[in-house]
Amino acid sequence: MLNLQSTSRERWLQQVSDHLPEILIDHAHCEKKAAACAMNLIMAYVDHPELVDELVVIVNEELDHFQQVLKLLEKRRIRFGRQQAGGYGRQLNDLVRKFEPYRAVDRFLIASLIEARSCERFALLRDHVQDQELAEFYGSLFESEARHHTTYVRMAKTFGSDEQVKERLEELSALEAEIIHRGEPLPRMHS
Amino acid sequence: MLNLQSTSRERWLQQVSDHLPEILIDHAHCEKKAAACAMNLIMAYVDHPELVDELVVIVNEELDHFQQVLKLLEKRRIRFGRQQAGGYGRQLNDLVRKFEPYRAVDRFLIASLIEARSCERFALLRDHVQDQELAEFYGSLFESEARHHTTYVRMAKTFGSDEQVKERLEELSALEAEIIHRGEPLPRMHS
Repeated sequence: MLNLQSTSRERWLQQVSDHLPEILIDHAHCEKKAAACAMNLIMAYVDHPELVDELVVIVNEELDHFQQVLKLLEKRRIRFGRQQAGGYGRQLNDLVRKFEPYRAVDRFLIASLIEARSCERFALLRDHVQDQELAEFYGSLFESEARHHTTYVRMAKTFGSDEQVKERLEELSALEAEIIHRGEPLPRMHS
Repeated sequence: MLNLQSTSRERWLQQVSDHLPEILIDHAHCEKKAAACAMNLIMAYVDHPELVDELVVIVNEELDHFQQVLKLLEKRRIRFGRQQAGGYGRQLNDLVRKFEPYRAVDRFLIASLIEARSCERFALLRDHVQDQELAEFYGSLFESEARHHTTYVRMAKTFGSDEQVKERLEELSALEAEIIHRGEPLPRMHS
């Protein structure tokens, strides 16, 4: 369903166990960036006003998640602030082709893959963390992120045929799996 | 209440009468940019999570207005799309000081002045346009834009004393009035 070509490894859960506060702060940043990503897509593709309503729903939902993570941080007395970003988003964005309409297809598909990977990791967190409130929170995010994944894949088809989008999604998803397989020492939501 | 140092002149209402569809398209772009502006402030000042809740409300409201304008355009069979931006926003943003915390004060105050000027113009449009549905729409926007103005001025005080913010608001508002006085030939919401 999520078009992912790999599952996360034990190494990431070890990072979660060792650095949960840092991962939570990164999660807040991820929600904020997800909202900004949907907003940027509205700005970039104004010539497709038919995409606006669904993108606005995504912006609102991601901002709502961002606020929820901030409240969880506050309750746990974890100070939110700047933090060095992981390399996942940058590596994926480097794969975006330069010219339209391929650029649009790639931007929507990469957004869809980030949602898919977040979804997979939220399910792992739900089952892994000891903190009951956190576990429930991650369970609650699962559904909307899965829906965003599907929405982004469908939107990509505004800019390419079903076949083109399917092929490119397979390529990008293979590259995404490689990035996740390499991992990185910085403990982050997508490390 | 709105801290403006001038009122709009007859010349602008003439532009409205002569080029209403172009002004409406620009209005949609303005709402989208207002949402992006609030989002950028969330991103830039993450070290002030106490500002997030109110900024999220502004993002949501501006996106809602954006959708409403798109619907009005569609109903009038005016095609939405890219359009050359007016010089108002750029000229105001050029006034932002380069270093923090002055930069933050200026960014919030300029956002507050754009809301104030929009508010003034919405009131004029409400009384000027013949189209009853449009007149009601502009009447309905007035209140939220006035509230955004007040919110942004208050947020500026996170980064400077009441006195500093008041003085800078007077300076910027005088410069804003000059920009409006000069006007521009391109018919836009802030021309």
